[in-house]
Amino acid sequence: MHFRIAIDMDEVLADTIAQALSLYNRQFGANLSRADLQGKSLWDVVPREHLEQVQTHPRSPGFFRDIPVMPGSLEVLPELCRRHEVFIATAAMLYPNCFTEKYDWLKEHFPCIADSRIVFCGDKHIIAADYLIDDHSQNFRGFSGKGLLYDAPHNHFEQGYERLENWEAIRRRFLA
Amino acid sequence: MHFRIAIDMDEVLADTIAQALSLYNRQFGANLSRADLQGKSLWDVVPREHLEQVQTHPRSPGFFRDIPVMPGSLEVLPELCRRHEVFIATAAMLYPNCFTEKYDWLKEHFPCIADSRIVFCGDKHIIAADYLIDDHSQNFRGFSGKGLLYDAPHNHFEQGYERLENWEAIRRRFLA
Repeated sequence: MHFRIAIDMDEVLADTIAQALSLYNRQFGANLSRADLQGKSLWDVVPREHLEQVQTHPRSPGFFRDIPVMPGSLEVLPELCRRHEVFIATAAMLYPNCFTEKYDWLKEHFPCIADSRIVFCGDKHIIAADYLIDDHSQNFRGFSGKGLLYDAPHNHFEQGYERLENWEAIRRRFLA
Repeated sequence: MHFRIAIDMDEVLADTIAQALSLYNRQFGANLSRADLQGKSLWDVVPREHLEQVQTHPRSPGFFRDIPVMPGSLEVLPELCRRHEVFIATAAMLYPNCFTEKYDWLKEHFPCIADSRIVFCGDKHIIAADYLIDDHSQNFRGFSGKGLLYDAPHNHFEQGYERLENWEAIRRRFLA
């Protein structure tokens, strides 16, 4: 079967939490890890007096440009593009400074994604696709296809969605 | 009836041809007008020796930031937003430098458009909407809703689409 699959960027293709943790730990001499975030976002666990500064991190120039690539995605995504119609659908309006950084990041790491297949949007229910792979289940509201929840610390305890643990699970789901 | 309506930016909401003509006329001391473009784009009518420079215009900083607003849109769009679910769907990948300019332009002229309702995309068939108002009929290919062709010099002789002459026609179509 050939599907149209929309794939979220932050926390699915880009390891945004790794970037956020690394910035936080560096700035505050802390040692927070992914394991400290089960069921929570970074903003939920930092001390209240750090919150304001932490919230400015995604606004700092370069934040979205040098995020590490999610393990496994470099191998699986190009294969997915050959077999299916793949779009990258990413919320970019929260931090409008990130358009160019996100675009350049995609061009560097995933040249298999044509310009015409990149969508910067706010509400994701505007996307017409068979599947949306996303770490935020609220993006499935009103989406006409099937939402697949990509595993992330903050959604650890969420139920009621088909969950994809990692890119190997995406490979099994769509390329087996 | 309440519809989801996706609206293109260049040549529908933004008078991009006016901007392109003005730049061309200023640079080459010419006097081209909209009337010279019936059935053609600006790139079709300029002398061959000007073409290369004309094609760089949309890449110049500021090109998308100070485009004039299309007559009538300032009055009709806010009303449309109150009655329908309106998205702005604009191709931005051809000139990736334009993301921020297009975003800032929308924020200045159309504060009725929430961030969540802005979509920067390539292929528009990824848009899930009842209607797409666009001046390029190729954007209707694969679009699951109904395409409405917004009148522009380059599409003057195209047939087979419901045509909207101007923003007053949009008002009659969706607000009567």
